[in-house]
Amino acid sequence: MSRFSFDLKATDGRARTGVISTPRGDIRTPAFMPVGTAATVKAMLPGSVRETGADILLGNTYHLMLRPTAERIDALGGLHKFMNWDRPILTDSGGFQVMSLADLRKLTENGVTFKSHIDGSKHELTPERSMEIQRLLGSDIVMCFDECPALPADRDRLAQSMELSMRWAKRSREAFGDRPGHALFGIQQGGLEQDLRGQSAEALREIGFEGYAVGGLAVGEGQEAMFGCLDYAPEQLPADKPRYLMGVGKPDDIVGAVARGIDMMDCVLPSRSGRTGQVFTRRGVLNIKNARHMDDPRPLDENCDCPACRGYSRAYLHHVFRSQEIISAMLLTWHNLRYYQDLMVGMRTAIAAGTFAAWQAAFHAGRAEGDIDPL
Amino acid sequence: MSRFSFDLKATDGRARTGVISTPRGDIRTPAFMPVGTAATVKAMLPGSVRETGADILLGNTYHLMLRPTAERIDALGGLHKFMNWDRPILTDSGGFQVMSLADLRKLTENGVTFKSHIDGSKHELTPERSMEIQRLLGSDIVMCFDECPALPADRDRLAQSMELSMRWAKRSREAFGDRPGHALFGIQQGGLEQDLRGQSAEALREIGFEGYAVGGLAVGEGQEAMFGCLDYAPEQLPADKPRYLMGVGKPDDIVGAVARGIDMMDCVLPSRSGRTGQVFTRRGVLNIKNARHMDDPRPLDENCDCPACRGYSRAYLHHVFRSQEIISAMLLTWHNLRYYQDLMVGMRTAIAAGTFAAWQAAFHAGRAEGDIDPL
Repeated sequence: MSRFSFDLKATDGRARTGVISTPRGDIRTPAFMPVGTAATVKAMLPGSVRETGADILLGNTYHLMLRPTAERIDALGGLHKFMNWDRPILTDSGGFQVMSLADLRKLTENGVTFKSHIDGSKHELTPERSMEIQRLLGSDIVMCFDECPALPADRDRLAQSMELSMRWAKRSREAFGDRPGHALFGIQQGGLEQDLRGQSAEALREIGFEGYAVGGLAVGEGQEAMFGCLDYAPEQLPADKPRYLMGVGKPDDIVGAVARGIDMMDCVLPSRSGRTGQVFTRRGVLNIKNARHMDDPRPLDENCDCPACRGYSRAYLHHVFRSQEIISAMLLTWHNLRYYQDLMVGMRTAIAAGTFAAWQAAFHAGRAEGDIDPL
Repeated sequence: MSRFSFDLKATDGRARTGVISTPRGDIRTPAFMPVGTAATVKAMLPGSVRETGADILLGNTYHLMLRPTAERIDALGGLHKFMNWDRPILTDSGGFQVMSLADLRKLTENGVTFKSHIDGSKHELTPERSMEIQRLLGSDIVMCFDECPALPADRDRLAQSMELSMRWAKRSREAFGDRPGHALFGIQQGGLEQDLRGQSAEALREIGFEGYAVGGLAVGEGQEAMFGCLDYAPEQLPADKPRYLMGVGKPDDIVGAVARGIDMMDCVLPSRSGRTGQVFTRRGVLNIKNARHMDDPRPLDENCDCPACRGYSRAYLHHVFRSQEIISAMLLTWHNLRYYQDLMVGMRTAIAAGTFAAWQAAFHAGRAEGDIDPL
């Protein structure tokens, strides 16, 4: 079985493009990972997700451990087989979602106990249990179990939390063991404090990981503060390993993160927006439920090659959204995921060509134009 | 533009197989028409519906006239373009669904006035308006506007209703006009009264249609009574024209109807069941939410070639149904529609080969076996 490796192909300013090689296939970076929370990217078949250009999906440990359970997925041959996706899967550690979704959480040095938001059953997550669950799922890229405080938080809280996460990172590394072809990523914490981020990066480097995530952002701090942190945080991490910004984001967040040296991202936004009628195009965001689309024979984006744009008018998409038809979520999710992947293709190409500044200018100019005029 | 025609290729007992030719493509009979009520077969992309083997879809005049309106669909290029399905479409007349869905219905010789179940707006349907709507939609097979009484009903009510429907059939024929490549189907009424059915058939023959429907069944009378009626009703209609049984049905209803000389059918059952977790297989019906499937690595039907059966275990389908994921409706609807079309393929092949009796025996034997044993 081949090993997990990262080949940095080109840089343009701080932006990078490369390829992560795994036994289940290559991941072209910068990479956007659609979120398949409960073993499905909502409203999409896996083959369609692949058609949008995705090289890797994200699965949520918290959801899967509760239902159908990691042990059941393992008995059924692992998450790839279970959900019919044979390419790489990254799983989060469960830590973030325990904090945002579970009931009656109790945090100790050992880990977190909580009650399921589904049925109230009691569970525990520790670094060791998170590693076990992610192994049972068969995840290709495993994330360290960490604690992620909401922002704003005071410096003492951030420091204590970061130090706990670093002790958990060490326990995660030990529990992960020797698994050729699988990767364990450390997660940098420290909020918006540059020195804490530096200490966290140093602790992670000492342990040693196959990749490094910038954690604890996109939790309420706003884009300006996030970009401020990304002006230094990625460069505190090893340059020869992939850098993953967790849970980001809107298209301009993604472009700004790539410009600051990020290689991987994930977010529910394109798929969730597909279900609420919010559509991303080169000319910004539109809401398909708006009455201006009711008689509009034009596609969402005449330059997009997704099935929603090739086969349907805005009038149709408006109609099926208003009629609460499932095809609305199917088509809009497909479009949004295709738009996100098209962004990634554009950035990879521009970085390789050394034209990323011009690409960014065109990206922002297109958005500034706004949606096409009503008929 | 080529004409609408029906070529009867073979018969086996009363069962028939043939091809309806239309400018938008051939319809192999016996044909099952998936229902695309609001310009979508729920939870399916049109290309996927075609992949299941469907040659023709059914659209609902009542729903489409209310939202997005026939005039809007016409302005957008017709229903085929609107919903991205370029093959034949049959539309019902709206009469049946006004009676089952609308509020404050008032029936007169002229037609029906009613209030929309969506927004309470007031509308009128007459034979002339129904023909106009179906023309605006661009329907390939247009149905006469008729009245369909619920069963049981007394003979006087059935006779009066049938006679009204025959007067409306004449007005429908006149309003339809001369539209080469498009067909108008008459609808036989008369409940379970053989002589009324005969009078209705005679009235329709005198007017003359491109096809004939057996209406007023599958409205609560039960399978035995329906089959009793189908023992004579189809043969009261012209043998050289397609015979369409409206709103039928379960798999054994469909097989029994074909055995009695029916060429076309439609029903929401395979698609609706796909959303409620009811699955049709060669071995009968199963409910995916049943706990027996929770750990079952086997497909719904090992002989089925649909994406649900090729890519997923019962355990996965159980998980996504329980998790209320959209992919559950997508996969189960696809499977059910594929199963229905596979039935039609089997019947067409057997009728052409003169082996329909043996095919029916195998069909019933498979169902009698019941679902595979739990693990």
